[in-house]
This record gives sequence, C-alpha cells and structure tokens, in this order.
Amino acid sequence: MAKLYHVPLSPFCRKVRLSLAEKKIECELIEERYWEKSTDFMRRNPAGKVPVLKIDGMTLSESSAICEYLEETCPEPSLMPKSAENRYEVRRLVSWFDDKFHHEVTSKLLYERVNKKVMGQGFPESANVKAGAKAIKFHLDYMAWLLDHRRWLAGDTMTLADFAAASHLSSLDYISDVDWNRSQIVKDWYAKIKSRPAFRSILADQIPGFRPPEHYADLDF
Amino acid sequence: MAKLYHVPLSPFCRKVRLSLAEKKIECELIEERYWEKSTDFMRRNPAGKVPVLKIDGMTLSESSAICEYLEETCPEPSLMPKSAENRYEVRRLVSWFDDKFHHEVTSKLLYERVNKKVMGQGFPESANVKAGAKAIKFHLDYMAWLLDHRRWLAGDTMTLADFAAASHLSSLDYISDVDWNRSQIVKDWYAKIKSRPAFRSILADQIPGFRPPEHYADLDF
Repeated sequence: MAKLYHVPLSPFCRKVRLSLAEKKIECELIEERYWEKSTDFMRRNPAGKVPVLKIDGMTLSESSAICEYLEETCPEPSLMPKSAENRYEVRRLVSWFDDKFHHEVTSKLLYERVNKKVMGQGFPESANVKAGAKAIKFHLDYMAWLLDHRRWLAGDTMTLADFAAASHLSSLDYISDVDWNRSQIVKDWYAKIKSRPAFRSILADQIPGFRPPEHYADLDF
Repeated sequence: MAKLYHVPLSPFCRKVRLSLAEKKIECELIEERYWEKSTDFMRRNPAGKVPVLKIDGMTLSESSAICEYLEETCPEPSLMPKSAENRYEVRRLVSWFDDKFHHEVTSKLLYERVNKKVMGQGFPESANVKAGAKAIKFHLDYMAWLLDHRRWLAGDTMTLADFAAASHLSSLDYISDVDWNRSQIVKDWYAKIKSRPAFRSILADQIPGFRPPEHYADLDF
C-alpha cells in the first residue's frame, strides 16, 4: 500500500490526499514533524518538506510533480482536461494557488497562527496576519470572477486546480480565516467540492490545540 | 509571431526563452518593467509577473504551465521523457530549482544585488547575500551528485529540468555568483548546455549598470 508522509493542515499535502482519494488509491497517512528534520525523513526527501509519497517502489516529493504522476499512472477519474489549452489553464491555476495565494495568504495566516505555535517559533506577527486577511479578499473575488463563467475553476470539469484551491481554503477554514459570506458563488463551489467522498478525511482532521469552527466539517454550512 | 514579455535576468523568463528557442518557435522579446505594474501589463497578466507569452491567440503566464503547454503543442524536439517515472523526475527538479533553489539562492543573490538596484529599492542586505552564497554550495554539490550517475540532471536526455537549473545558474553567473571550480562535473554540464544554439540570446543579454564577467558568454570558460 502507498504511504503518504504529511501534516494535516498543509495545503500541499491536502492536494495530494484529495488526488489519491478521488482516484481511489489506498494510502496510509503518516504524520511527519518535518521541521525536526529527522535523519530518516531527510533520507526520504532531501528537500526536507512534506508531502512525501511512497508508491510503486519510489519515494516522491513536490506536490505538483506527484499529482501529475498520479494523473499519468492512474488516469481515471481524470483531474486534467484533454486539450493543451485547458491543461495549461489548470496548471496556471495550480501555480496561482500554490505560489501566489500561498505566499500572500496561506503563509501569512496559517503559518503565523498555527505553524509557529506547533513548531515552537513564538507568536504571530500581526502585520503578516493583517496582510493575509486583506489579500484573501482579492483572491476570493478572483475566484468569484472565474466561477461566474465556469462551472469549476479551470473550466467545465473538476480538476487539480479545484483541489489546489480547496486545499488552501480548507486549511484556512479550519482556523476560521475564510469569509464565506463574501461570495455566494465561491461558497457554492466549496460546498460542491466539500461534499465529495474524497474530502472526508480532510474534514476529519483534528489538530491538538486548535479547534475548528462548527461549520468546518458541516456539508451544509 | 509569438511575443514574450520578459526581463533579461529572470530565470523564469530564461527557462521559457530556452524552451522556445530549442523548439525553434519564433518569438519577439519585449522587456517589461513589471514592477511598475502598468495598467496594460496588469491587463495581460493579473498575477503581475513575467514571463507572459502571447501565442496561438492566448496570453499565458506561469513559466512551468507555459513550458508544459509548449511541450504539448510542439512536442519536437522533446524536453520531457516518455515514462511517467522519468517525467515525474523532471517535474520534481523543475520545482526544486524554481522553488527551493530560487528561495534559498536566486532571491538572496540576484534579487539583492540586481533587482533592488534596478527597481530603486535600496542596497543589498548583506545577511541575505551571505546566506545565498552559502546555500549555492549545497545546491552545486547536489547537482554534482545527480550528474555523477546521469548524463543530464533528470536522466539520459536533456529536459526542462536542465533548462530550469541553467536558467538560474546563468543569471547568477552574470553577476559572478557561481563558483565553477567547485565541481568539474557541473562545469562540464553547463559547458554542454551553454553551447546549444538555444542559449545564444541569453549569453547576449546586457543589463545597463551591470557588466558580466569575461567568462559569461565564453563557451570555453
């Protein structure tokens, strides 16, 4: 059976978890305190990051490379469209969330509020939290603009782009940092993706010391 | 004809330039002072970054999504191997350079020494420069370790992984920040990639106020 070394609130790990679950690839989840850089873990992944996936006799790192690998080796159900134009749009949006959204929002909110505490690195920097809370509004509006003329973020089918976005938003939702009242269309999109069986393990995550809001695991939030 | 909005020393732009040139896709290069965030440019790319490629009636951003698109629409000569395992390794290494190497080295050396001056953001932070100069050694050693049992970084053929690495290293070489004496095997690899016709436009770059070292454009350095 495949093994995924992960931390529960990491959006990069969640993206891989969603891909695995959607494709019904059985996988054991192992929590990894990667910031302690144990020799064992550094041997598994010289980049010193999660997720790390053991599958098909290989040890894989880098979430986007992992998701493309899963797509190529287990193409059904597909999380990538067929045409080059549409595949480009999926990859652009995955980069948008994993790079731009991560830098402007996730690292400013989740890392300040949760990671610092868990890793024993002190208290949240309020300037960062403020910047993240401001930036997420722009991103939710951008998503609303996309979803105004598309069923899913990258087009008419659910793709890795939706998983990337939902991974970041679900982690932020765990710490009540998403204002779902800002856009009905984004809320509807999230309700749709949240109700998929692949999302169950994510909604069951519990991080000691942090209690999610009541609506976190509620499909009818 | 395709148009690429770029800045000369950006490794992300260089990676796209190398892909275009290797695939012999004719392209007009247009320098973009993206940090001034002109309305025109922001309309082309809401992420506010370069590279932006106009091609096939579309406007593309995010360098990795662009390179995958070029690979899918213009597959010869190929910059991706055939098997899923080998494709995974290419994507892992592209992420390694564009994410980890960029964060630990390029942003600490190139951005401090060049971008800050060009963008009028003051002087280099010496702690960053020191950290970048230390980190590049680890990365050169990692490359030497890979190249010790492979002809190219991701395997036996030249791929996007080599272009990603060469893009970062060539930009750093322009400001004399690469110690080519550290590893003969890495130097040989760079000499091989530098001598490709696709590399010519990169070796001809001139940035006002920064003169490259004599060996920068020398194929026999």
